[in-house]
Amino acid sequence: MAEENRPTGTVATKGIELLTHDTPNGYKASVLLEELHDAYGINYTWQGIDISKGIQKEPWFVALNPNGRIPVIVDHDRNGLAVFEGVAILNYLVRRFDKDFRFSFNPETELDQVAIAESWMAWQHGGLGPMQGQGNHFLHVALNKKQYYSAQRYVGETERLYGILDTRLADRDYVAGAGRGKYSIADMAIVGWASIMKISGADDSKFPNVAAWVARCRARPATARGFQIPKDTPYRDSNTEERLKDPEAAKHDKEWKEFLAEAQEKFNYKYTSP
Amino acid sequence: MAEENRPTGTVATKGIELLTHDTPNGYKASVLLEELHDAYGINYTWQGIDISKGIQKEPWFVALNPNGRIPVIVDHDRNGLAVFEGVAILNYLVRRFDKDFRFSFNPETELDQVAIAESWMAWQHGGLGPMQGQGNHFLHVALNKKQYYSAQRYVGETERLYGILDTRLADRDYVAGAGRGKYSIADMAIVGWASIMKISGADDSKFPNVAAWVARCRARPATARGFQIPKDTPYRDSNTEERLKDPEAAKHDKEWKEFLAEAQEKFNYKYTSP
Repeated sequence: MAEENRPTGTVATKGIELLTHDTPNGYKASVLLEELHDAYGINYTWQGIDISKGIQKEPWFVALNPNGRIPVIVDHDRNGLAVFEGVAILNYLVRRFDKDFRFSFNPETELDQVAIAESWMAWQHGGLGPMQGQGNHFLHVALNKKQYYSAQRYVGETERLYGILDTRLADRDYVAGAGRGKYSIADMAIVGWASIMKISGADDSKFPNVAAWVARCRARPATARGFQIPKDTPYRDSNTEERLKDPEAAKHDKEWKEFLAEAQEKFNYKYTSP
Repeated sequence: MAEENRPTGTVATKGIELLTHDTPNGYKASVLLEELHDAYGINYTWQGIDISKGIQKEPWFVALNPNGRIPVIVDHDRNGLAVFEGVAILNYLVRRFDKDFRFSFNPETELDQVAIAESWMAWQHGGLGPMQGQGNHFLHVALNKKQYYSAQRYVGETERLYGILDTRLADRDYVAGAGRGKYSIADMAIVGWASIMKISGADDSKFPNVAAWVARCRARPATARGFQIPKDTPYRDSNTEERLKDPEAAKHDKEWKEFLAEAQEKFNYKYTSP
C-alpha cells in the first residue's frame, strides 16, 4: 500500500515545479523562487522529497535527475524540461525569469560580474558544499565509525574555505557585483551552507564577516520564506538551542564535539586560510 | 635566490593567459582553448603552475584566485579580469569567443540544451570531481594512513557516478546536445577525470560507453593538444604501462590496489548505480 503523501511523480501541469528537501542545496532553489515571486510575481509548485525515505532513488525521480539527488526543477511550460544541480538550476531560473537582472548579471553589459558570480558559485558547488558535506558525514552520519583523520580533514578544509569567504566579505555586503555588491544567485548558492557551519564543526568566531552576511541575506522576507520550503530545518545553527532540548540530540551534540576535538588534537590541526 | 623558471606573476599583456597544471581540472581550460584556436584562430598564453611547489598559494596567485587553486584564466583584454573554477572558466570562454556555438549552446534558441549542459557540468564539478579527488587522496596521497572506510567510500561513490555517465552515453556520442549530442564544454569538463578512472580505483570494465566516449573526445586533434598543456601526465590510465616501468611506481601500484581490495572487502562493498 502506498505511503500517505509520499510523492510518486510530478503534480503540476504548468509553470515551475520544484522537488526539494530541507538541506543547504535544496534551499538554493526555493530561495531564488521566492525572490522571483516578490520581484516578478512568479508562482511555482513544490513537493518535499524526504531523502531519508529514498524517494529520490525511485524510477520516476531518476528519470528527472539520473543522479538521484535533490533539488530538481521541472519546467512544465517547456515540455517538462528537468534541470538538476543547484548551480544549473539557479542559472536556468534567472535566464528564464530575471529579465531585469535583479538577482543576476547581464552577459551583454556586465560580463565581468557574470564571471565573478560564476567563479564563486562554482567555488561553493565544487569546494565548500562537497567538503562541508563530507565533514557532516564523518561528524554525524558515520560518527560511530570514529574516522579521526577524515573528520579533521574535512572540517579543516571547511574552515579554510570560510576563511576565504570571510576575507571576500570584509569590504562588501554581497559576494558578487560592483562596489559593495548586489544580492544575487552567488549569495543564494552559499548562504544555506553558511547557516549550518557550526553544526559542521567550523568555529564561527573566526568568520565574523560571514556571520553578518548570513544575517543580512536571511533578513530578506523572500529569502526567509525560501528557507521554509519544504520546511525549516532543526539543523541550522540558529535553531541549535531549540534542537538540543531533545536529550538524544544533546547526547549526540556532546559526542561529536568530543570526537572532533580529539581528532583535531590527534592530527595537530591548525587553522590556516587560504 | 628565485628558483629558475618559477612563475612569479602573469607574463602576457594581451589576450587570455592560462595558469594551469597537468590535472583533470587544469586540462578543462587548455582543451577548450585549443579547440577555440582551431575553430576561431584564438591564441593564448599559458604558464605551468607546479602545485607540488606551492606556487598557487603565493600572494600574486591568491590575488587572482583567493582559493589558491589552478586553473585560473586572466583576460588581459578586459583589465586583467581573473576567472577561477573550471566551470566558470569554460562558461566565460565560450561566452567570450564561441560566437557560433561550436562548443556550447545558444541561450536565445537552445535554452534547454544550455540547461542540460550546465546540469552535467555541475554534476562533474560538485560530484564526480570532488569524490574522485577524495578517492585519490586516500589511495595515493594518504595511503600510509590506511583509511579503509574512507577509501572504499569515495571509490564507491566514483563508481556510482561513472555508472550514471555510462547510462547517459548508452545512446549518444556526447553528453549534451540534441540527438546523439554535440561535442561541447560538458564533455570537456568530464573527460579529464574519466581519463584517470582506473588510477582512482574504479573498475573501467563496468563503463564501456564511458571508455568509448573518452577515446572519441581525445581523438580530436585540438583536444589531444589541450591534454599536453602544460604537459602530459603520467597519471592517465593510458600511460599506466609506461609509468609502471619505474619500480617505485610499480610498488605503489601494488600497494594501493591491495589496500583498496582489503577496504572494499572489510566494508562489503557492492557496486550499485545510481
